[in-house]
Amino acid sequence: MQSTVRVAVDAMGGDNSPLEIVKGTVDAINECPEITVHLVGQEKVLEEELSKYSYDKARIMIVNASEVITNDEAPVMAIRKKKDSSIVKALNLVKTGDADAFVSAGSTGAVLVGAQLIVGRIKGVERPPLAPLLPTMNGVSLLVDCGANVDARASHLVQFAEMGSIYMENILGIKNPRVAIVNIGAEEEKGNQLVKETFPLLKACKGINFIGSIEAREIPNGAADVIVCEAFVGNVILKLYEGLATALVKKIRTGLTSTKISTIGAALAKPALKKTLKDFDLSQYGGAPMLGLNGLVVKSHGSSNAIEIKNSIIQCISFKKNDINGKIKANLQSVE
Amino acid sequence: MQSTVRVAVDAMGGDNSPLEIVKGTVDAINECPEITVHLVGQEKVLEEELSKYSYDKARIMIVNASEVITNDEAPVMAIRKKKDSSIVKALNLVKTGDADAFVSAGSTGAVLVGAQLIVGRIKGVERPPLAPLLPTMNGVSLLVDCGANVDARASHLVQFAEMGSIYMENILGIKNPRVAIVNIGAEEEKGNQLVKETFPLLKACKGINFIGSIEAREIPNGAADVIVCEAFVGNVILKLYEGLATALVKKIRTGLTSTKISTIGAALAKPALKKTLKDFDLSQYGGAPMLGLNGLVVKSHGSSNAIEIKNSIIQCISFKKNDINGKIKANLQSVE
Repeated sequence: MQSTVRVAVDAMGGDNSPLEIVKGTVDAINECPEITVHLVGQEKVLEEELSKYSYDKARIMIVNASEVITNDEAPVMAIRKKKDSSIVKALNLVKTGDADAFVSAGSTGAVLVGAQLIVGRIKGVERPPLAPLLPTMNGVSLLVDCGANVDARASHLVQFAEMGSIYMENILGIKNPRVAIVNIGAEEEKGNQLVKETFPLLKACKGINFIGSIEAREIPNGAADVIVCEAFVGNVILKLYEGLATALVKKIRTGLTSTKISTIGAALAKPALKKTLKDFDLSQYGGAPMLGLNGLVVKSHGSSNAIEIKNSIIQCISFKKNDINGKIKANLQSVE
Repeated sequence: MQSTVRVAVDAMGGDNSPLEIVKGTVDAINECPEITVHLVGQEKVLEEELSKYSYDKARIMIVNASEVITNDEAPVMAIRKKKDSSIVKALNLVKTGDADAFVSAGSTGAVLVGAQLIVGRIKGVERPPLAPLLPTMNGVSLLVDCGANVDARASHLVQFAEMGSIYMENILGIKNPRVAIVNIGAEEEKGNQLVKETFPLLKACKGINFIGSIEAREIPNGAADVIVCEAFVGNVILKLYEGLATALVKKIRTGLTSTKISTIGAALAKPALKKTLKDFDLSQYGGAPMLGLNGLVVKSHGSSNAIEIKNSIIQCISFKKNDINGKIKANLQSVE
């Protein structure tokens, strides 16, 4: 029998909750027999939504949570006060070991703060980073950190590189993943204070394959597998990636349909174009894992639809199966 | 008679020098009767290149410079040692008042350092930023600073906002330009230490139209006219803009030609598509001006072709005609 992966899902988080969250959960259950889900949120609403679908009822358990944390709330306060919110209740399921992982499309701030306060860090991990996959010309790269720890220190970035390498090697199967630090030039002496401090530490770090600096221009070309930066810069990269890709595709659509002849051309080219652009669609890759916690927390986009939620839930399987946390622990202990 | 704008052009800088630089210079001269150029570089090479073109010979003067500063050289050392380089000689023409402006596609570091050391800052300007125009869905936005001053302070960012506003109002004709600070969320309490310090200062700054934070996702939508950030973040934004646009267009080209039918479609749609994508081509907008110097220094991309060089030279006209430096001086004095 396959071992089970138990995922707590925040049914109330994100722009499309609970409809798309429930649909994504059912789709994940129906696609992967090894998953069971604790669906956390307002019981009656969820019962009604679930009644629309056919699925193995033994594998989705509703956990009632009367409160909802919104994006406008100050994260620390919200986590402390709203004990009966879907985020706090779901995180507690991970803390007590009733769930292996937590998936949420809700408030990023609340998820990040709650994960650290409730689930807690692996001993030795200084700051757990948020690490999304970015689509590139030839696959994906892992961006660590994209928003968990602003004003990070050099030692944090070294741990990001180590944890990111473990993730890419074991989840994506990339042998000896290339690690680079985001910089404003390729030369070692370039950069701000943080990069100048971090560069020699990464160079000296034995467990990783450090290839030096990466300019932002090279990120879409897949020039590194693990891209290390502090959270402010990482967040700018992630958001600009999303915003620019959306803007360009819109622009291209306008161009393709701006004349009668081009509209005919666009109709002929559409299927092939759609297939190619899918590679650059971030929602395909599920959510961003937060690395270095006593459990797994996956932050999905606020705008997540059912497909992204499904992918976020499914990605929890390989995280558990490959014992990423065990490997992070072993790696940190060997450093000490 | 029109007043003349005298531009010193670094003929030896950039990947395509001197061929494209010389061609761009001739094109600028032929297009704009009010421009004269000091073409700075190796005399014999330039004479030979120029002999290929027909133009008003009185308006291009060759200034011999035997040395060339490369991208590999440490900027400060290069500026100090290579007194006969095209960059140092051209900057000296601006310093002595023999030229109004300097255009270079050469080493960014050397141009930025040289500009500050040789041309010098306007009294009261703490740090002169590099401010390129970014294409957006509905026009352009000015990004200040994109690489001149890493680890900047809050007071520097306030000056970036003031100088950027003057530039956008007078050069682009945007009344009361909207100023925003790059942040990782829209709320005032979000951000890193620098943003948190700068935010209230921008809010209190009287001469500008501060609209708050801008997430990187919103930049391509043209959500602000002047986008303020420190140089490391700005450089990441600029480079990712270039890299991602190039990657996506490549990806789309692959998609459009991946099947026989789509290739026919692509051929029909091509002219219309090309026209639309031109709006997102950074080279159209000339180089990035460095604001707050006693003179104008324009940094063009290292990969500049003749069109970009031509545009960089032509943009010097409106900078002088609108007396941007006079307005910056007046604005800073009124603050004191």
